[in-house]
Amino acid sequence: MIATAPFKRLALIGFGLIGGSIARGARAQGLASEIVATARSAETRARVAELGIVDQVFESNAEAVKDADLVILCIPVGASAEVAKEIAPHLAPGAIVSDVGSVKAAVLHAMAEHLPAGVHLIPAHPVAGTENSGPDSGFAELFINRWCILTPPEGADPKAVEKLAAFWSALGANVEVMAAEHHDLVLAVTSHLPHLIAYTIVGTAEELEGVTRSEVLKFSAGGFRDFTRIAASDPTMWRDVFLNNKDAVLEMLGEFQEDLSKLTRAIRRGDGDALYEHFARTRTIRRGIVDIGQDAAAADFGRPKAELAKKAAE
Amino acid sequence: MIATAPFKRLALIGFGLIGGSIARGARAQGLASEIVATARSAETRARVAELGIVDQVFESNAEAVKDADLVILCIPVGASAEVAKEIAPHLAPGAIVSDVGSVKAAVLHAMAEHLPAGVHLIPAHPVAGTENSGPDSGFAELFINRWCILTPPEGADPKAVEKLAAFWSALGANVEVMAAEHHDLVLAVTSHLPHLIAYTIVGTAEELEGVTRSEVLKFSAGGFRDFTRIAASDPTMWRDVFLNNKDAVLEMLGEFQEDLSKLTRAIRRGDGDALYEHFARTRTIRRGIVDIGQDAAAADFGRPKAELAKKAAE
Repeated sequence: MIATAPFKRLALIGFGLIGGSIARGARAQGLASEIVATARSAETRARVAELGIVDQVFESNAEAVKDADLVILCIPVGASAEVAKEIAPHLAPGAIVSDVGSVKAAVLHAMAEHLPAGVHLIPAHPVAGTENSGPDSGFAELFINRWCILTPPEGADPKAVEKLAAFWSALGANVEVMAAEHHDLVLAVTSHLPHLIAYTIVGTAEELEGVTRSEVLKFSAGGFRDFTRIAASDPTMWRDVFLNNKDAVLEMLGEFQEDLSKLTRAIRRGDGDALYEHFARTRTIRRGIVDIGQDAAAADFGRPKAELAKKAAE
Repeated sequence: MIATAPFKRLALIGFGLIGGSIARGARAQGLASEIVATARSAETRARVAELGIVDQVFESNAEAVKDADLVILCIPVGASAEVAKEIAPHLAPGAIVSDVGSVKAAVLHAMAEHLPAGVHLIPAHPVAGTENSGPDSGFAELFINRWCILTPPEGADPKAVEKLAAFWSALGANVEVMAAEHHDLVLAVTSHLPHLIAYTIVGTAEELEGVTRSEVLKFSAGGFRDFTRIAASDPTMWRDVFLNNKDAVLEMLGEFQEDLSKLTRAIRRGDGDALYEHFARTRTIRRGIVDIGQDAAAADFGRPKAELAKKAAE
């Protein structure tokens, strides 16, 4: 495997859910002869070394990127520019520099400023995740049948784009290429707005008078639970997303607010027909998502069937 | 089993997700000597007969409740009063009449008006479900480790309450008793508001300019997908919920709107500290839900691990 690995040295800056999943997947698929990683905290570095997935763990980002032909920043987007500046003098000519951030336009511009000529900046965003974070949270299968969006700047080397696309395909992802600005608009609705709404409603539930926290937890299976999952995502990552994709998020929020006002009015006026018509329409969207394999129709809701059968037999 | 069944005849009015799950569970646990069901459409009745889970399928609700000592309405709450009126003259003295609706105060009052003395009205709400409906959607394990809330009216017979509580316990549920009005407030936040928000955002996503429907579906794994699940719930059921729990829902909507305004302002002003503080706080709620077993921490997200492992091996 080593002799034919597409990359000589893969340097992962950061080893959270995404960095850790790339490391595990790239190792399993033989995508790099050598995989190195960095982590900011000594505790995480110790854990990464202990896990034994990568060949070397560095404290210094500069040291990690030396001789690397693929460098992937797996850190909150707010830290990208600073890290780009830090590693720039140490990058090998011809290296591909990428990231995994949920916002692309701001990051692209912030990083591009610092990188030397002869290095290929190809930002990427694997649309996959769980609410867990930290070095133990990753798994090799995270990207299977998920999309990875590449947003190469104008004039990017097609060969470098192709090489990075092949890397993500090998991890199991479907790859799509689009402009950074379009990415940010699409993700504002499919990811950023849902997270903001989920963060809001979970906060609302916690502060109510007349309903205790214990009641909110106990009866969460009525729908609330589905929101808490995404409202448990990494706070630093999400702070940076909203700070760096402000305009698109505010635009989507405006649309959402208008629609919520319409439904609120229908409730206040007791307009059952308007409610029914809306609810029947949204149902078809769900069917579409299940049809293209982005979710399962199985009704396990966090309680795998095997576990239920066991409980039923008790 | 038949000799010791706690109920002689269980009559289920309606055979959707909940009615069908009760039938399957009650059959599996031997909770009634005879189980009968009704359904409005001939198609559903034919399917229920074919499934062979119940002893008899009736078109007439009046006929189904004859000699039944437990009658459970498993229909949208908007139809409860009408059905109560229809079955009232045919109910056996001492029968327990219950339901499974997501709204309790309005239903309790609407049904109580019609029922004769000597019949025990004990409304119930199993807080469990999936986005599927119809006679094939139910399964016996649906209620395991979920809560079932009983809202007996003042002066209800404690023995009847206890008997119904035992029935739900036998189906695997944890039973809680509370006032109908308090139930409606608690569920407004843990269920009704989340559904309304999910219905709204899924509608918003469908109507955007600049982002195609195909893009929304493809990149839904970024968070949007979690909302579509509950926005695919039965439209008639949810129309009735909002029409019958208007005040509590509007109150919770007001709270939600205030909180959303605060977060929107933080984004507009670029106030990263306020965002971080909020996001870190909501994370702890999720931990609480996982801790009490109302969801699993497993990161399968609709893609069971076994399936992923299979794909990874391809």
